[in-house]
Amino acid sequence: MSAADLMAVLLANYLRYDFSSPDNPANDHLVFSKGHASPLLYGLYKMAGAIDDEELLTFRQFGSRLQGHPTPEIPWVDVATGSLGQGLPISVGMALAGKRLESAGFRVWVLCGDSELAEGSMWEAFEHAGHAELDNMIAIVDVNRLGQRGPTMHEWDTSSWATRARACGWDVQEIDGHDLLAIDDAYAQALEADGPAAIFARTKKGSGVSAVEDEDGWHGKPLPDPEAAVEELGGVRSLQVAVQPPPPAQPFEVKREPVERPSYEVGEKVATRGAYGDALAWIGSTDEKVVALDGEVSNSTYAERFAAKHPDRFFEMYIAEQQMVAAAVGMQTRGWKPFASSFGAFLSRAYDFIRMAAISDADLKLCGSHVGVSIGPDGPSQMALEDIASLRAVFDSVILYPSDANQAVQLLDAMRQHRGISYLRTTREATPVLYAAGETFEIGGSRTIRSSADDDVTLIGAGITLRECLAAADDLAGRGVTARVIDLYSVKPVDAEAILGAAGETKALITVEDHWAEGGIGETVAGVLAEAAAGTPLVRLAVSGRPGSGPPAALLAAAGIDAAHIVAAVEQALN
Amino acid sequence: MSAADLMAVLLANYLRYDFSSPDNPANDHLVFSKGHASPLLYGLYKMAGAIDDEELLTFRQFGSRLQGHPTPEIPWVDVATGSLGQGLPISVGMALAGKRLESAGFRVWVLCGDSELAEGSMWEAFEHAGHAELDNMIAIVDVNRLGQRGPTMHEWDTSSWATRARACGWDVQEIDGHDLLAIDDAYAQALEADGPAAIFARTKKGSGVSAVEDEDGWHGKPLPDPEAAVEELGGVRSLQVAVQPPPPAQPFEVKREPVERPSYEVGEKVATRGAYGDALAWIGSTDEKVVALDGEVSNSTYAERFAAKHPDRFFEMYIAEQQMVAAAVGMQTRGWKPFASSFGAFLSRAYDFIRMAAISDADLKLCGSHVGVSIGPDGPSQMALEDIASLRAVFDSVILYPSDANQAVQLLDAMRQHRGISYLRTTREATPVLYAAGETFEIGGSRTIRSSADDDVTLIGAGITLRECLAAADDLAGRGVTARVIDLYSVKPVDAEAILGAAGETKALITVEDHWAEGGIGETVAGVLAEAAAGTPLVRLAVSGRPGSGPPAALLAAAGIDAAHIVAAVEQALN
Repeated sequence: MSAADLMAVLLANYLRYDFSSPDNPANDHLVFSKGHASPLLYGLYKMAGAIDDEELLTFRQFGSRLQGHPTPEIPWVDVATGSLGQGLPISVGMALAGKRLESAGFRVWVLCGDSELAEGSMWEAFEHAGHAELDNMIAIVDVNRLGQRGPTMHEWDTSSWATRARACGWDVQEIDGHDLLAIDDAYAQALEADGPAAIFARTKKGSGVSAVEDEDGWHGKPLPDPEAAVEELGGVRSLQVAVQPPPPAQPFEVKREPVERPSYEVGEKVATRGAYGDALAWIGSTDEKVVALDGEVSNSTYAERFAAKHPDRFFEMYIAEQQMVAAAVGMQTRGWKPFASSFGAFLSRAYDFIRMAAISDADLKLCGSHVGVSIGPDGPSQMALEDIASLRAVFDSVILYPSDANQAVQLLDAMRQHRGISYLRTTREATPVLYAAGETFEIGGSRTIRSSADDDVTLIGAGITLRECLAAADDLAGRGVTARVIDLYSVKPVDAEAILGAAGETKALITVEDHWAEGGIGETVAGVLAEAAAGTPLVRLAVSGRPGSGPPAALLAAAGIDAAHIVAAVEQALN
Repeated sequence: MSAADLMAVLLANYLRYDFSSPDNPANDHLVFSKGHASPLLYGLYKMAGAIDDEELLTFRQFGSRLQGHPTPEIPWVDVATGSLGQGLPISVGMALAGKRLESAGFRVWVLCGDSELAEGSMWEAFEHAGHAELDNMIAIVDVNRLGQRGPTMHEWDTSSWATRARACGWDVQEIDGHDLLAIDDAYAQALEADGPAAIFARTKKGSGVSAVEDEDGWHGKPLPDPEAAVEELGGVRSLQVAVQPPPPAQPFEVKREPVERPSYEVGEKVATRGAYGDALAWIGSTDEKVVALDGEVSNSTYAERFAAKHPDRFFEMYIAEQQMVAAAVGMQTRGWKPFASSFGAFLSRAYDFIRMAAISDADLKLCGSHVGVSIGPDGPSQMALEDIASLRAVFDSVILYPSDANQAVQLLDAMRQHRGISYLRTTREATPVLYAAGETFEIGGSRTIRSSADDDVTLIGAGITLRECLAAADDLAGRGVTARVIDLYSVKPVDAEAILGAAGETKALITVEDHWAEGGIGETVAGVLAEAAAGTPLVRLAVSGRPGSGPPAALLAAAGIDAAHIVAAVEQALN
């Protein structure tokens, strides 16, 4: 109710949207960053004639698309909101796409709450939108003074936020959010701005209904006397608004620099992070929808190799991983295929955004480099040791962990073709190329590198630990023990058939991972075994103890995941 | 090298620190938010006489406490840094403790980088410190213009940041960071400020060495000709600084309102989140070190019950989960026992901070409410479905998931006594009290609620699914199937003995969890079974499919984790 006047004026006079054709690329975007205002959003759809009263009354009911917070199950909703502080940074991605990739005329209107201005991610968005001069973006902040449990820090004093937004390069207005003419003037001025525009609108929660207006304690609660409220608001009405259609969409062109598919010689030492960079540049040339974003570490993730070839489609997001992932989510709403990279450890900064991206059914490709203790001297703050666990626990995600450079190239192209959330885990160190450039690897597959009819034991690794498994197998061969070696490069979905085959044919399985034991490769394998009631012993080697700095080999040994530890584990398991 | 002048003046003239007594509570705090400046920090220790040249040369070597990024393995380091944007918000917690809890005179000096100002968490800290008027906090920003891979957004133009910090209520200065007198004046002025003070110091990366000074491409790289550099810097010297000791520590008093230990009648319906609030208020009365923080949802997590009894020890952190967790980490460096709460889903916002807290060896207690699909109509954005997986994958963490209110009280008190990172997962819905108030529950335990010598099958649940398991057991009894029921309230560490006992004594195990399948209770149990080579079939029921809004019962059914699905799974497993 606090934002109803703001949205009514927007719908009547400014929004350009064809509700009968939500896929029209010229449509404006309307993002409710304050997703809990969903009743207002659904009310707008009703006013626009997109839904009827009957559907409106299914709000929050089982099976209804009108959920408690908006999701893209509704065709006019681009992204799920409801975790505060996400709608504005996601909108930055839409606006970046419009301005830098598509030269398009659409506008991105974002309704924000005042409480969510406490989220740092909102200020990442203010900073980035100002820096990128996104004049196609208008943030409307509903300053109703009251959060869920009481007053906000600044209540109706909008000056601090206004000063900050202005300092970020925004055109800023502070208005009375219930003054219809002031609202109309503000939107008109916002459209004239040279950069992004913010309107801080002082409003009253529960506006128009004296029983609750500007009163604390009513957040997310139904009105005490809804009939009296309707009466006070002017009685039952059924306003219809003819929303302006967008102008015709304009075609645009994407530059495509030719880049050869990278390939590496077997035995050559190449880091999979390097292969990521090479392969990203390549798929950028084969698929014009591919775009890349990086969190100010492109000389480490090697996303810079994409930037060098396709500068128009590369986005430097600086050290702001939430904004990076959010921008990627925004871009994919417009059909782009965003690849966002940082150190795997720092993607944890954006975990809530990745979680929400799954609810948005987003097509989001992530790459985390510098995983595990094998990064060496930089120490534990830089080591991703929980990325497999946390990203496996994202709905419908795909987790790929290449063991050599040629495989990384293949898997990256598989990610390009896969629609959904996928994650590529790359290694800092250069490791020997194992596979010929022509070999194929699929999402959900695995590769049994060594096997024979009389294998004693199975070693399962991926990435850096596959190298250790192979070294251990060599050592074991000298001790008369034959080891099968499986490259479990697709951690999710996992190749259960290969695991169960090994469980049936060998006496024990050893998993080895440069990751904590919880939620990683070992537990994935354990789940497969337990569900099949396979009683084959499983030994899970994973990082034990808090690592420090040191050379990679010393850290692998200290963590208990190097070849020597594998050999010892096999000997113990077979005795 | 860019910040060497800034830190030299600080050490010589302002820092009050007794290096021989790092536990002295009157010592100032010095936090390197830009943890990659560790060589400078270790150089300061050398200048202060705390370490010698020999140790300095162990930098980044295996086994050395002088890691690539600072960690509290070093007695003068409070918290690990190296994930940028964390040192400043953590320092807010130290300053809050000094000002609001201890009335202490120490100061918190924070060296920040300019690149990390792109992280929203830095602006959560600026906002919160300004709001709380933390005049014991001084942020020194080393504006060296260059990030890892190139220029920052603002380079040497500090005006935008300065304006924003000022708008947040900070005393702000912009200086030349190589002008020793200007630095000295700035610190003197900062100490006179009424609120937090920020000094934006324009500096040159590689200052003083012409081969690299203000040149791009040298981030994190050794100097090309170190001997020439030493020569240019004035030759080999061995400066020693007599650092001022702190004034004597002042005693302080903590108010302790008496609160009775909560207890509930068996059969009564109570939400475990309510028990959290009641129990938190109770342990606040038994242990004066207990403090509570909440992310603007204390009327949902019920942390408000603590606030009502112990307002001096309650901290409203607004909707800024990163700042909330960071402040808790800061407070525990001073011996406080912080309990930080929000919706479980929103703790994912602070995942990188929790990851780093483990590297800091922090004593951090977290509570996530509103977990799983059973929250009902608010929809998936509000449902924690990945919290067990992600928080299990935090080094040495404890994960507790109470199944009734009396157990929640016990477990919260166990968390209070446990030093380390622990997480309590609470349920929105009121569920029947199962256990008498006097029963004891331990971290690492489980409770077999129903069992007999001829159990056919074992049902394992926790929280809301334990209720479903009990209902299923009743139903199965009517069908002639006897089910053992295990309450696996301690998910990590887990009671392997109880699981293996059930595996040996019953024909199948069924785990049921209101969480994704990955990394949750089912995989935990699978890991136990697989490592023991127990071939008992395991069926893992977990949330399948993307949930929507609806009544809790409908959502549990749709997710496949209600009593009816358990019964069906048992019948299938036994056939």
